[in-house]
Amino acid sequence: MSATESPSYPRTDRTTPTRARERVSYDRALVHSILDAGYLCHLGFVAEGRPVVLPTLYARLGERLYLHGSSGARALRGSELPVCVTVTHVDGLVLARSAFHHSINYRSVVVHGTARRVTDEALARTALDALVDSVVAGRAADCRPASAKELAATAVLELDLTEVSAKARAGGPNDAPEDLDLPHWSGVLPVRAAYGPPLAAEDGGSRAPLPDYLRQSVGA
Amino acid sequence: MSATESPSYPRTDRTTPTRARERVSYDRALVHSILDAGYLCHLGFVAEGRPVVLPTLYARLGERLYLHGSSGARALRGSELPVCVTVTHVDGLVLARSAFHHSINYRSVVVHGTARRVTDEALARTALDALVDSVVAGRAADCRPASAKELAATAVLELDLTEVSAKARAGGPNDAPEDLDLPHWSGVLPVRAAYGPPLAAEDGGSRAPLPDYLRQSVGA
Repeated sequence: MSATESPSYPRTDRTTPTRARERVSYDRALVHSILDAGYLCHLGFVAEGRPVVLPTLYARLGERLYLHGSSGARALRGSELPVCVTVTHVDGLVLARSAFHHSINYRSVVVHGTARRVTDEALARTALDALVDSVVAGRAADCRPASAKELAATAVLELDLTEVSAKARAGGPNDAPEDLDLPHWSGVLPVRAAYGPPLAAEDGGSRAPLPDYLRQSVGA
Repeated sequence: MSATESPSYPRTDRTTPTRARERVSYDRALVHSILDAGYLCHLGFVAEGRPVVLPTLYARLGERLYLHGSSGARALRGSELPVCVTVTHVDGLVLARSAFHHSINYRSVVVHGTARRVTDEALARTALDALVDSVVAGRAADCRPASAKELAATAVLELDLTEVSAKARAGGPNDAPEDLDLPHWSGVLPVRAAYGPPLAAEDGGSRAPLPDYLRQSVGA
């Protein structure tokens, strides 16, 4: 956090939820930690007046998100695009005694703003490195960087983190007192992403040894 | 599939991608299998001309998706809402020798349409059971059904599966022939959702034994 930054994002009409307000936070460090724990977002935009939501990769650098796609992709053709970028991690399935109190433990971040196309080549390269490292930390330094032609085929978008909120639920079910004696198991089933053993590419991917950063990713 | 249904959804302008067309499918059985493998979607809608994307639960019943939320939630106040519902499963991280060919193995479905509020009580109950079972199969029959008051507090939306596409990537990296001798490990790191041991609620959740359907979910 730089000296000019508040520890919280400002609350706006758009980031004030109409329900479950107790689950919402504007804390900058919490928002960063949720964003940094993932690499896949759902990018929403409006096309011909209708909503479109597409999964895509993202990376955070300071107070900006970077997204990328083909430079031919519909959403990325203009220089500016009003977007909503949402990142969600599921942490558990919450089983209550009542159907009504079933829930999900999760952490999510919603970012509203206007994405801009990155035209500076050095910044585009930095963002692409961050995108590769967002998926597997340490990988950007261990692969061939994009050629000029590849760079031209890639659209990089940047989005300021200014209108941002986090929402999270943790803990057990919230059964009503009168339901506590009902004869149903209740509690939480924890969920996490797990990695299987790395599968080397059949075209000779294992000629180089499995790198340490990947070994660490899989906990091997 | 009923006798009147084609094995594929019709392709429309909106479900024709501008890139990676070889990854797109309109196959009904594939779409169903991707939808049935998940319970969390990202719901996109337009509010005051700007996109909003929120994570929410869904369930499929035949050729309809059901979503739910608080009846006070902003998005669910009207009787009809143009939406885009996207479901994404990540299956693997694809590490190529070149930064450019890094990718994700995934399966996703995008549904465009207009969601309607369910007003029929019997249908709302059926949909809520499906939503609980979507998260943990078998659970709807093992909890207290919603009371009239709880039902009134819950908004159930239905969305026809008419304008639908699936997109998927599988397999190893697509490195260019001239990159095959670069000294970088390449291949796929498989990803899946894993369940931890169930945590009984501290208010007596373990008084009933852990049910078989939950034991099966966790592979215990």
